[in-house]
Amino acid sequence: MNSTARTFQLRELVARFGGELRGPGEVRIRQVAPLDAAGPEEIAYLARSAFRKAAAGTGAGALIVAERDADRFDRPRIVVADPHAYFIKVAALLNPAPEPQAGVHPMAWVHPQAQVAPSAEVAAFVSIGAGAWIGEGVRLGPGCRIGAHARIGEHSRLHANVTIYDHCIVGRRAVMNAGCVIGSDGFGGALENGRWLKMPHIGRVVIGDDVEIGANTTIDRGAMADTVIEDGVKMDNLIQIGHNCRIGAHTTIAACAGIAGSAHIGSGCMIGGASRIVGHVHIADGVHVSPATVVTRGIEAPGRYTGIYPFSEHREWLRGAVQLRRLSETGEAAKERSRPRPKAKGTR
Amino acid sequence: MNSTARTFQLRELVARFGGELRGPGEVRIRQVAPLDAAGPEEIAYLARSAFRKAAAGTGAGALIVAERDADRFDRPRIVVADPHAYFIKVAALLNPAPEPQAGVHPMAWVHPQAQVAPSAEVAAFVSIGAGAWIGEGVRLGPGCRIGAHARIGEHSRLHANVTIYDHCIVGRRAVMNAGCVIGSDGFGGALENGRWLKMPHIGRVVIGDDVEIGANTTIDRGAMADTVIEDGVKMDNLIQIGHNCRIGAHTTIAACAGIAGSAHIGSGCMIGGASRIVGHVHIADGVHVSPATVVTRGIEAPGRYTGIYPFSEHREWLRGAVQLRRLSETGEAAKERSRPRPKAKGTR
Amino acid sequence: MNSTARTFQLRELVARFGGELRGPGEVRIRQVAPLDAAGPEEIAYLARSAFRKAAAGTGAGALIVAERDADRFDRPRIVVADPHAYFIKVAALLNPAPEPQAGVHPMAWVHPQAQVAPSAEVAAFVSIGAGAWIGEGVRLGPGCRIGAHARIGEHSRLHANVTIYDHCIVGRRAVMNAGCVIGSDGFGGALENGRWLKMPHIGRVVIGDDVEIGANTTIDRGAMADTVIEDGVKMDNLIQIGHNCRIGAHTTIAACAGIAGSAHIGSGCMIGGASRIVGHVHIADGVHVSPATVVTRGIEAPGRYTGIYPFSEHREWLRGAVQLRRLSETGEAAKERSRPRPKAKGTR
Repeated sequence: MNSTARTFQLRELVARFGGELRGPGEVRIRQVAPLDAAGPEEIAYLARSAFRKAAAGTGAGALIVAERDADRFDRPRIVVADPHAYFIKVAALLNPAPEPQAGVHPMAWVHPQAQVAPSAEVAAFVSIGAGAWIGEGVRLGPGCRIGAHARIGEHSRLHANVTIYDHCIVGRRAVMNAGCVIGSDGFGGALENGRWLKMPHIGRVVIGDDVEIGANTTIDRGAMADTVIEDGVKMDNLIQIGHNCRIGAHTTIAACAGIAGSAHIGSGCMIGGASRIVGHVHIADGVHVSPATVVTRGIEAPGRYTGIYPFSEHREWLRGAVQLRRLSETGEAAKERSRPRPKAKGTR
Repeated sequence: MNSTARTFQLRELVARFGGELRGPGEVRIRQVAPLDAAGPEEIAYLARSAFRKAAAGTGAGALIVAERDADRFDRPRIVVADPHAYFIKVAALLNPAPEPQAGVHPMAWVHPQAQVAPSAEVAAFVSIGAGAWIGEGVRLGPGCRIGAHARIGEHSRLHANVTIYDHCIVGRRAVMNAGCVIGSDGFGGALENGRWLKMPHIGRVVIGDDVEIGANTTIDRGAMADTVIEDGVKMDNLIQIGHNCRIGAHTTIAACAGIAGSAHIGSGCMIGGASRIVGHVHIADGVHVSPATVVTRGIEAPGRYTGIYPFSEHREWLRGAVQLRRLSETGEAAKERSRPRPKAKGTR
Repeated sequence: MNSTARTFQLRELVARFGGELRGPGEVRIRQVAPLDAAGPEEIAYLARSAFRKAAAGTGAGALIVAERDADRFDRPRIVVADPHAYFIKVAALLNPAPEPQAGVHPMAWVHPQAQVAPSAEVAAFVSIGAGAWIGEGVRLGPGCRIGAHARIGEHSRLHANVTIYDHCIVGRRAVMNAGCVIGSDGFGGALENGRWLKMPHIGRVVIGDDVEIGANTTIDRGAMADTVIEDGVKMDNLIQIGHNCRIGAHTTIAACAGIAGSAHIGSGCMIGGASRIVGHVHIADGVHVSPATVVTRGIEAPGRYTGIYPFSEHREWLRGAVQLRRLSETGEAAKERSRPRPKAKGTR
């Protein structure tokens, strides 16, 4: 769809990213493509043996393959340890993020006490509050809302309609997709006589470097201390992060996950889509939570954790659900039996 | 709440939509209403026998009923095969979407290289990027963001603050509710030494004709190929569609559902609210997924599929959950027993 | 992080909120803080005995404690029945919401037939439709979209990019977080010959007083009657409320919950995060739904209800899931056995 501006020879790719060249190094690559759609100026990759047939029939001008496939195809190719990772690096080289167009759009609004770096791009209808700071090379898409005293680190890119509440901090090189909300009030308070007392949230959200946030994801500010997202965290769309959470470095969170207030997630975790983690728990480094799993207590050891009700044809599910209900009655019956019975009076 | 501009006689409704008139055809209808609230200028419908009592006592000026109820009430009525569908057509006739007010609001921003059809309505604070194309009769609500080279088909309506990323395509007669995001980056990449390599997403989102998208729903663009939403798909609010998904024609998806990357859903499916479909699977045409069900593998046959943990009073649930845990231990014990045992040394 | 403008003496707090003062009443408090971070001008609270150790070592200038801890510490303190609730009141006193800066920003757009009270604050890029009404002391953050004939009650605060559709009503003192959408079309319609007929939604959303709505939460308008949110309801982020729902007074709903169309929830309920309630059911007052629980039928009695698949280490889960599948087969086998068997022909 996009046609890239620059082409690269295979030998240039190898010079940048390593790997072993097989075939002519002067082959020019303009774009990346999947095996089944690639043309002569495109490069594809083969990561799993399941795709060998597709690789044999591909029209790609070159391939990226693993050692075990080094001599399986005679097409110009680069042999590497991890073809998928290598392919992504080539894709990023061929499709660089556009440079910011420095300057503030005449239809944007910047508070006189805000600071915007000269190389930053501020699109139409952006608003920037008092005391906010926008770093060099930042791109703010149309309709972004930067609250008072918020800070956006160098070279971060905010797509359209992103909201950063007052005092929140975004690190360098962030990518924030449209509609995400950083720093909304947390759901903190207490019931008094059946009425909700709202806790004013005076903490911030503090986001490290190289963080990516998905579209319409929401991250609440801390009640008193901060909500913290460490370096390199990647979050997908429609995720909820509660107040005072801490998400460890380089953890990935897939779409629709929800993490309740004051949960602390370790680094290098993989949190599956639509999974839920309750509040006030600690999850160790390197934990992998399966999709749609509900984590109801802390996890101390790395590993993979799962809790999914197996789906089936509807009537079969109905039968299983009935049996599961019986189990809880059985448990009750067993518990009843194990209790000391009161002696019957007057009989015998 | 709304008072409609025009009234219709029963005979005019029958002339337009069919059905058999019983009673005076000159009765005038101004609005639709439920049985229990309808007045003399309003029409109500009776779809299920459970509502016969309400129908007997209704103040509605006219009724839409099924054949089996044709002579049950003496109120002016239209007898049809499907009263609910008929009622919706009457409601749509009485409550037409407002016509676009042609023109670009002086507080909107349109790139000089964008094309906006003369009959399109562009509200305040809309931004339209370079090379974008807006068709005849389109309505863009305030704060919509139309990316560079995006296309919005004729007579589509985008409510407030909708974001369409660069290069994405929306078909004709779409209805897109506030805050939905089309074309955000997919969650694609790979881990290399514990660090996330982000795949630049160069695919688009391509949306067919007559599609409806709910508020704050997000649809990711494809990594290399496109994410495709076929004609007539209806999506509710807060839904996530991952990169490279394909949603078949006339499939409906209820709120809070999540469909992970590269899943292909057939046509005419009904995907329940808060259900989850994992990535890279194929779901056949005509599949009905129950609410909150997690689909962890492909489905080849039409039918209804379910996986919901039955809820109950909390203590009862606790007992069932304990029994369910024992089941997994039992399974383990059985597996252990079926293993060949090493001979005990030195004994006997 | 925030430094508050005013300080209060302990005796002033007691005069306002009650409680019993122990120690010098002239101690000045500038801010609230957690026990482990509080300094000499800050007040902390002790709600649970688990935190007694932290309270003993705190640097807080004063404490709020329960009766049972009245004499456990010699630090200046206020003894109260509910330290958490008391602490929140002090926090709210020290951190008042900022006063609206009266007036309409020159980069906002207000329809000439809309009414905006003189004391209301309308930020940049807000749009307000024909016939809309904005009450005294309202604050509309940047990018809010107020539809035609919508009403925003006195002293309500809408954060950035909130959308209120035409004709919807928001009560007094609401807090609406960024990106929430009120009044989108409900997912109502019917299939006719495999095609979706869309029901035009002519009902409204009507929101009572003192309601709080989280970021990116969506509430659909009614099909014919209204969707109703009663006084004092508190909703977290990314919640979906379907068309024609009614949420009873002072009910709290945690993040990512979804309530399907026409469900009626009682007052004083607690609806857990990521829980789901199906449509057309009635939930009694005082019901507590656990997180991630799927409520598939109405609930008549107050109490706590749960349905969560217990998570475990992945392989253990796999064994349990296999056993659960067998249960449904067992159920089937039992059902088969209980059927009258056809006589075998020709044998015996």
